[in-house]
Amino acid sequence: MSERILLAHGSGGELSHELIARMFAPAFANPTLARMDDSAVLPAPPPGSRLAFTTDGYVVRPLFFPGGDIGRLAVCGTVNDLAMMGAAPLYLSAAVVLEEGFATDDLGRIVASMAAAAREAGVEIVTGDTKVVERGSADGCFITTAGVGVIPAGVELSGAGARPGDVVLLSGPVGDHGLAILSQREGLRFASPLESDVAPLNGLVQVLLQAAPALHTLRDPTRGGLATTLNEIARQSQVEIIVEEARIPVRPAVQALAELLGLDPLYVANEGKLIAVVAPEAAEAALAAMHAHPLGHEAAIIGHVQEGRPGRVALRTALGAHRVLDMLAGEQLPRIC
Amino acid sequence: MSERILLAHGSGGELSHELIARMFAPAFANPTLARMDDSAVLPAPPPGSRLAFTTDGYVVRPLFFPGGDIGRLAVCGTVNDLAMMGAAPLYLSAAVVLEEGFATDDLGRIVASMAAAAREAGVEIVTGDTKVVERGSADGCFITTAGVGVIPAGVELSGAGARPGDVVLLSGPVGDHGLAILSQREGLRFASPLESDVAPLNGLVQVLLQAAPALHTLRDPTRGGLATTLNEIARQSQVEIIVEEARIPVRPAVQALAELLGLDPLYVANEGKLIAVVAPEAAEAALAAMHAHPLGHEAAIIGHVQEGRPGRVALRTALGAHRVLDMLAGEQLPRIC
Repeated sequence: MSERILLAHGSGGELSHELIARMFAPAFANPTLARMDDSAVLPAPPPGSRLAFTTDGYVVRPLFFPGGDIGRLAVCGTVNDLAMMGAAPLYLSAAVVLEEGFATDDLGRIVASMAAAAREAGVEIVTGDTKVVERGSADGCFITTAGVGVIPAGVELSGAGARPGDVVLLSGPVGDHGLAILSQREGLRFASPLESDVAPLNGLVQVLLQAAPALHTLRDPTRGGLATTLNEIARQSQVEIIVEEARIPVRPAVQALAELLGLDPLYVANEGKLIAVVAPEAAEAALAAMHAHPLGHEAAIIGHVQEGRPGRVALRTALGAHRVLDMLAGEQLPRIC
Repeated sequence: MSERILLAHGSGGELSHELIARMFAPAFANPTLARMDDSAVLPAPPPGSRLAFTTDGYVVRPLFFPGGDIGRLAVCGTVNDLAMMGAAPLYLSAAVVLEEGFATDDLGRIVASMAAAAREAGVEIVTGDTKVVERGSADGCFITTAGVGVIPAGVELSGAGARPGDVVLLSGPVGDHGLAILSQREGLRFASPLESDVAPLNGLVQVLLQAAPALHTLRDPTRGGLATTLNEIARQSQVEIIVEEARIPVRPAVQALAELLGLDPLYVANEGKLIAVVAPEAAEAALAAMHAHPLGHEAAIIGHVQEGRPGRVALRTALGAHRVLDMLAGEQLPRIC
């Protein structure tokens, strides 16, 4: 193949077919994709189940960063949005917009990373599309994935499910993804470099659902960070959420860099963490299940839900004072995902 | 809302929520979207059916063109990819990448057009995402849609389904979309301006499936045009396809502009046409069904399938000579969809 992506790779003609046949199809290899029809054809889910369907666009800059790249992010982000509804993620689509002149080798690395992340999450990339725009009309590579999963009968999760008395758990330290991106972008070098936490959370969700069926809400705190996602839950559920500052895990390296840059880690994006809101009697079982999973061994109970002032999130500081934790107001870190 | 899109509209914070609450949610209004969870939750399809799942990115330039816009295109294109598998299209996702500074009013027009096209096609836009990149890092607005549909039991369509003896039908004249875009882009003015044919084809497919159950292949000739799509069918089905030049409908205005620009309308994109390959005994019923539908009243039988040389498409010219109709080689019209 040519070393650089040409406009003709997006034409639908011979070069598009070559790109699919030599790059996408071998990497994502599965019989559904191999049919190369206008749509993937998939078996219907079992009776009594429901479908979960979601999409996200990925425009992260730089494309490659410590701990991941846009390909891994595009698979994990969409897998996680399915998992947060209690769905078993099954199928992904991938639509790529490339800038003319993009290095074919870089695309190959991204595609290989998508394939590896899909294997890790146990999903298949069954359908896709490639468009190419003129030099200067995009920034290298944007990827949009959509995902389909199956929610088993009896699983009912929603951002609107939090109830007064519920306990709020967090699966691990916050801020890693955003600060890893930022340190890479700004050329900051550290003795132990920060790494993005980008990972598929469906395995962790599965053990949680088994251990604590009284799970009310799962959300992954991506853009806007922990604080913004807690605000979304508080608004959707019309409850107040109180979290304890001292209980929210933050890595020392993240804390140090955040302070240096004047950022609050509670507002920084994560790509491999989840918030779980569970009935109080299920909290210890949920915590134990998380601790037993590689992606949850630093999990903590960080707060609780109360009637209070619906839609509000309050942080109890180490000194015992309360301050309101608002939703992210402006743009903290553009193109973090 | 602000007159221009800001980076903060993609932050996941307050401005993202405002954009969703004031623009997307009211336009796409449906109870599934209104839940605003990480994924849409959808009922499982009936037992015995299968799912169709597809995606396409849309980067058309200009965003508004005679007969449509990027919003209408993004809905119809994905609806049509589902319909070509015989699926009833049900649900769409929409992921938008915006350039900082994009006019909020233009986004409103695009979103309204998506909503109108979704109503026309009978689908719901149930989940979405918005990202914003810095000025100069994208070209206004890119949209990626994915779609989920249900294929009823007994319907088996595929690009690999064409068999020797089958008849090839085309639902109407070719080249309208590509040349409408090109005339707009180049500022060409005509007494009767060309219009894109962009339209949802699921209604036409439904009447076809009823009239001619012996339907083997449906494909919409988008990028690469009729010639490229016929080549795809010939390759997938391992058959030769012969089409008659004199029977392929092309509007005089399209023919004239194509000649002026040195383009072949058989390689120009369409967004509201389909190719149907049917068993010979079903051909007349299929043609009659198309003729009775508003999107098929100019339909024609354009050729047939034979064993011949597998993978080849031949055009019988008006003078009776045969010439091989290859797949589109280079890039004829960039950013046509």
